[in-house]
Amino acid sequence: MITKEEIMEIVENYDQDNLSIATVCSHSSLQIFYGARQEGFRTIGICVKEPPRFYDAFPLAKPDEFIVVDSYKEIPTILDELRTKNAIIIPHGSFVEYMGGEVFAELPIPTFGNRAVLEWESDREMEREWLEGAGIEMPKLVKPQEIDGPVMVKYHGAKGGRGFFVAKNYEEFQEHIDPNEKFTIQEFIVGTRYYLHFFYSPLREEGYKLSTGILEMLSMDRRVESNADEIFRLGSPKELEEADIIPTYVVTGNVPLVARESLLPKIFNLGERVVEQSLELFGGMIGPFCLETVVTDKLEIKVFEISARIVAGTNIYLAGSPYSDLIEPNLSTGKRIAQEIKLATSMGQLDKILS
Amino acid sequence: MITKEEIMEIVENYDQDNLSIATVCSHSSLQIFYGARQEGFRTIGICVKEPPRFYDAFPLAKPDEFIVVDSYKEIPTILDELRTKNAIIIPHGSFVEYMGGEVFAELPIPTFGNRAVLEWESDREMEREWLEGAGIEMPKLVKPQEIDGPVMVKYHGAKGGRGFFVAKNYEEFQEHIDPNEKFTIQEFIVGTRYYLHFFYSPLREEGYKLSTGILEMLSMDRRVESNADEIFRLGSPKELEEADIIPTYVVTGNVPLVARESLLPKIFNLGERVVEQSLELFGGMIGPFCLETVVTDKLEIKVFEISARIVAGTNIYLAGSPYSDLIEPNLSTGKRIAQEIKLATSMGQLDKILS
Amino acid sequence: MITKEEIMEIVENYDQDNLSIATVCSHSSLQIFYGARQEGFRTIGICVKEPPRFYDAFPLAKPDEFIVVDSYKEIPTILDELRTKNAIIIPHGSFVEYMGGEVFAELPIPTFGNRAVLEWESDREMEREWLEGAGIEMPKLVKPQEIDGPVMVKYHGAKGGRGFFVAKNYEEFQEHIDPNEKFTIQEFIVGTRYYLHFFYSPLREEGYKLSTGILEMLSMDRRVESNADEIFRLGSPKELEEADIIPTYVVTGNVPLVARESLLPKIFNLGERVVEQSLELFGGMIGPFCLETVVTDKLEIKVFEISARIVAGTNIYLAGSPYSDLIEPNLSTGKRIAQEIKLATSMGQLDKILS
Repeated sequence: MITKEEIMEIVENYDQDNLSIATVCSHSSLQIFYGARQEGFRTIGICVKEPPRFYDAFPLAKPDEFIVVDSYKEIPTILDELRTKNAIIIPHGSFVEYMGGEVFAELPIPTFGNRAVLEWESDREMEREWLEGAGIEMPKLVKPQEIDGPVMVKYHGAKGGRGFFVAKNYEEFQEHIDPNEKFTIQEFIVGTRYYLHFFYSPLREEGYKLSTGILEMLSMDRRVESNADEIFRLGSPKELEEADIIPTYVVTGNVPLVARESLLPKIFNLGERVVEQSLELFGGMIGPFCLETVVTDKLEIKVFEISARIVAGTNIYLAGSPYSDLIEPNLSTGKRIAQEIKLATSMGQLDKILS
Repeated sequence: MITKEEIMEIVENYDQDNLSIATVCSHSSLQIFYGARQEGFRTIGICVKEPPRFYDAFPLAKPDEFIVVDSYKEIPTILDELRTKNAIIIPHGSFVEYMGGEVFAELPIPTFGNRAVLEWESDREMEREWLEGAGIEMPKLVKPQEIDGPVMVKYHGAKGGRGFFVAKNYEEFQEHIDPNEKFTIQEFIVGTRYYLHFFYSPLREEGYKLSTGILEMLSMDRRVESNADEIFRLGSPKELEEADIIPTYVVTGNVPLVARESLLPKIFNLGERVVEQSLELFGGMIGPFCLETVVTDKLEIKVFEISARIVAGTNIYLAGSPYSDLIEPNLSTGKRIAQEIKLATSMGQLDKILS
Repeated sequence: MITKEEIMEIVENYDQDNLSIATVCSHSSLQIFYGARQEGFRTIGICVKEPPRFYDAFPLAKPDEFIVVDSYKEIPTILDELRTKNAIIIPHGSFVEYMGGEVFAELPIPTFGNRAVLEWESDREMEREWLEGAGIEMPKLVKPQEIDGPVMVKYHGAKGGRGFFVAKNYEEFQEHIDPNEKFTIQEFIVGTRYYLHFFYSPLREEGYKLSTGILEMLSMDRRVESNADEIFRLGSPKELEEADIIPTYVVTGNVPLVARESLLPKIFNLGERVVEQSLELFGGMIGPFCLETVVTDKLEIKVFEISARIVAGTNIYLAGSPYSDLIEPNLSTGKRIAQEIKLATSMGQLDKILS
């Protein structure tokens, strides 16, 4: 990974009164550009082949300018231009996926957040080490012979919501498993899923205090998954199977929701543990992150995954959420990111939030 | 259908500085009146027997005055009064349904949008000609012997969410079909449903440009259907059938959601094709319309129906949506309609948006 | 129950220009405090052991001060302090549950709303007498031998979403019932659930008029229930049963939605009947209440329960709902409560809204 020193050398050559905010035109870019504009930043959209026309339909989110590349693989060739424009990159899921984590880690361009999180998050075992090390309960990994309840089975190389199946017990597991494929088995936590949108600020002082900085919880969403969400109109899992119709879990969108207020202490405790552990392990996970959880009927919260950057579920809330409105009316995660960059600039502490 | 010339003759006798906006008190009328008020229009509610009392509970949406009829069939008798008040009618689904399409088409009163759309939309075959002619993928119509996957079967005369059934395959189709009834069979697209709320403006120049005018996407919703949405708590389709409990699909409300940002280019492309084709076929579909779609797990979008006017799903968003807020904070479809009328008036081009 | 006279004696000793609003830190307290602040009230959070840290994360909702007790049972010991601070208690579900209804009924401290509602609401038979006396349709109670369709069976002592089961018919009932337990059987209404959030004001004069005062409908929600909401990904009820997985109905959160506009007259009629009957039976149910309903595919609305105070479903809407925005932009139930107290104070009629 590129070092903090190398990045800060670039930043020192920036005109810090004229920073711009850049990201790839996808995922949560409308929100990021909108938020950046609200805080007075110039915005740059990085896009493939030509500027997506849909931005014309959303004038308040349209970036001030576009930089066009032939493919996302070409992003390393536009870094000079980005640096000339004093650009800070806001990474999102598609950005990282399109570039590849390894290329992204090395890009000599200031990036919001700590890129060291990437290796901890992208490797299943390190992710588990991080979260369980923080004292967080995750769905257990089980061996075939240990199955004693519902499980989620994931074939290696499963991607984007396919290559999974659920089994209610060992018999069903055996019926379904393709023994020629590699797989992992995870306890299936029965409950309702909540995707919790946090923000860790190493700079703000007022708020829910951590060992250093503060923790915010800006919103939460539930994902809309195709075809799993509506397939039950056709038949139960077993009935579908007999008809050779296979459930898939491809995210197509997001729905807003709120959690029982009595869950908030647990929710903040989860966020707190994850951040504190990240501070110890790799210097901290800066800015927005998402805990992907299941709330059981005993009101326990299990975490099955972490995303260490802005997630698309925050797109529902670009004019505020029932939580962020209690920090500042109409606050979105995109706006919050821009505020953090502004604050760091005014404090002369961009090194605390960039990598 | 009444001619544009006849309508414009009425409009020319209007006091265009004192237009009022009128609609039938149902469906999306709160939103329409609220939006009209926000833009400074006088509002008129057309109601049966007596003004619905619930308007008293929503002072910002209560029309300035009511015109009472004995039944919606009597609307033709109040046109003189409406014309005296310089009224422009905003049609919505219930308005058209209550009056009957043929009566509606002939009403000598200025109506927002192009009434020519009605025949294209209300006839299943013409609707398919329009949409498929625009290069849009719809669920295929299939013959019984061609069934090779899930299908939706609709008896002729099915109405309001009843008289349908789904079958996972040919065997199930055969088990269920009543051969004494007429029916059509349509491929059942497995995925998640999105109702996309567009607005076509022939007048605005800045935005997502079409051959003439611009396209906006203001919001999207998912419908709440009774009893299909919650019936699965009782049993799977097969188990319900054995207990003689029949799934129905009656819309009782709407839920907000957003789509993956990477779907937006496809979404706008769909809207664009539909409008361009409408311009060719019948002079254009003006103002709000809705594409009723399913997003598959391959992230394809199939369109199963079009509504060529404001839909009730927009009612969720009368203080703005995660999309419309990027055009103008707190913009609703109702407000957008009023803005278009205001713009047309100021440009002296009411003929472009009325029929 | 403590008498109105005793309460008003306390209130007369209050400095009415410096009232404060107090509640227990849970359930809907963020909303209550936020709304109270918006209307200029000082706020007091009653909490166990120590102030919940999560309030630090929501500065606009953090109470001005906390009063710490060892357990909610100790609340009676802090009444002096509360009275010194001119506090009015806003009761919510957790407040009443934690204290116990009988203790709550006797607390010598001014409480928003009419505490007489408690006995009518907490006793299933009196609740039914009240609602059915108001001409409202509830799910029928049935005897085992009368079962002729889907039923919901509830064991006595069932609590918090457990100890229920649904059966599609008599056979299933017989298969499942534990004859050694006491139970009640209720018709299972097939449809979609709407939790309707009303507000009855005995003081406002403009609005949806009742025999005295006015009725508002501020919002509606649907509950997120664990594990019932997502368990169907594993199997149908029957398939789950064979795997010994039991559906439970524990509320973990809430989702926003709107209802068909044509349902509004029925919705207001239900609210109206309930309030009018409460005026007759026990002097009226003041302030927020919630009707828990099912809308069938015939667009009938059945009420299965009433909550006679603010419900947690309103937490979604602390910056306004598609309904409350038509009364006043950004109006929440929490803010509405504070407005009512302010209005009563200015009218010198606190006796009308406190007990």
